[in-house]
Amino acid sequence: MLQVLKALALMNAMRKVLKISSKELAEKIGQSIQAASRKLKELEDEGLIERTLTKDGQFVVITDKGKELLYKEYLDYKRIFEGEGEFVIKGKVFSGLGEGRYYVSLEGYKKQFEEKLGFTPYPGTLNLKIPKEQMFFRAKLDEMEGIKIEGFKTKERTFGDVKAFRCRVNGIEGAIVIPQRTHYPKDVIEIIAPVKLRDVLGLKDGDWVEVEVIV
Amino acid sequence: MLQVLKALALMNAMRKVLKISSKELAEKIGQSIQAASRKLKELEDEGLIERTLTKDGQFVVITDKGKELLYKEYLDYKRIFEGEGEFVIKGKVFSGLGEGRYYVSLEGYKKQFEEKLGFTPYPGTLNLKIPKEQMFFRAKLDEMEGIKIEGFKTKERTFGDVKAFRCRVNGIEGAIVIPQRTHYPKDVIEIIAPVKLRDVLGLKDGDWVEVEVIV
Repeated sequence: MLQVLKALALMNAMRKVLKISSKELAEKIGQSIQAASRKLKELEDEGLIERTLTKDGQFVVITDKGKELLYKEYLDYKRIFEGEGEFVIKGKVFSGLGEGRYYVSLEGYKKQFEEKLGFTPYPGTLNLKIPKEQMFFRAKLDEMEGIKIEGFKTKERTFGDVKAFRCRVNGIEGAIVIPQRTHYPKDVIEIIAPVKLRDVLGLKDGDWVEVEVIV
Repeated sequence: MLQVLKALALMNAMRKVLKISSKELAEKIGQSIQAASRKLKELEDEGLIERTLTKDGQFVVITDKGKELLYKEYLDYKRIFEGEGEFVIKGKVFSGLGEGRYYVSLEGYKKQFEEKLGFTPYPGTLNLKIPKEQMFFRAKLDEMEGIKIEGFKTKERTFGDVKAFRCRVNGIEGAIVIPQRTHYPKDVIEIIAPVKLRDVLGLKDGDWVEVEVIV
């Protein structure tokens, strides 16, 4: 019924009295003439439209009650799409091998974190293991471009590119960093922040953490 | 199915993986557990959600396809409520008794038309007879405040208040004027404009005219 009311609104029946036969409506909504006619009757009975039959045909207009119903829907959709650029990944804290600490401290990366993320990261990462039911948004990170932290070379070796995403963990701003290595595990994320998140948030292995990704 | 998808979106399932049992969903949407469960299955089959069952329960997230469908709805509603402040009254041109010409020319009204509407009206009104199926919006004008044109007194008599509404007739801006007399006919509107609408638009008695009311 709502879909028919919406179809009438899209034909401007909220702003003008619309001349429409049940046959025309049926074509618009892709249903039978009987169904279209029955739905108009229902909308009328509910006071959502006013209908007038004259020798010239059927005229329909959306009432204030109908408009209110549509407006409520509109507000729902607005709510859904507001602050659209954020999503949440949930994971479980685990202890890494201290590799994060090493990489974050490297001048070649650190400089870029400061420039591109706007903070000096605490030397270390908070590691989260992502359970399978939470993989949907973890996989999104692989599709998304993020903020590119360029790789670099030292005399000894080459360091690869890293993708970063601004994020928030319990209100503290930080960034998810994903090394662009082929064999980097897909069910893990590492987070850097200006502070030691584990201490500040009192986290221990096995605790659940929600990471709001800001895009 | 769309309503269930929307309900999930309102529970934030577009931005995070949502843990929800079919029982909880059933309560949310006011339907039976079986219906809720079946609808989730349908949404999954259509690729609108992704569902994961683990020993901890049922997890649901809205896919990009689901998000697109919701976004399309959102855009429809946006379109419906954009330029919301306008509606259209359709009526048939008829010749009045020349009373309009007399009133519009009176200095007491004319001055206010200039001040409050921003134009000097052509001395005369375009009269429209509103058929019964178009009365919905004509009746709205009686409920609405409009722009108040104050009545005034001369030595001979008293002239009453007039309500005005900015409007557009085939792109020409003007105003509907409704004298606040008790016995003014409800199925008529009179329009004033800077030009003689009848001539400029080539109108004759019996022609249909659409009046866009700007509120």
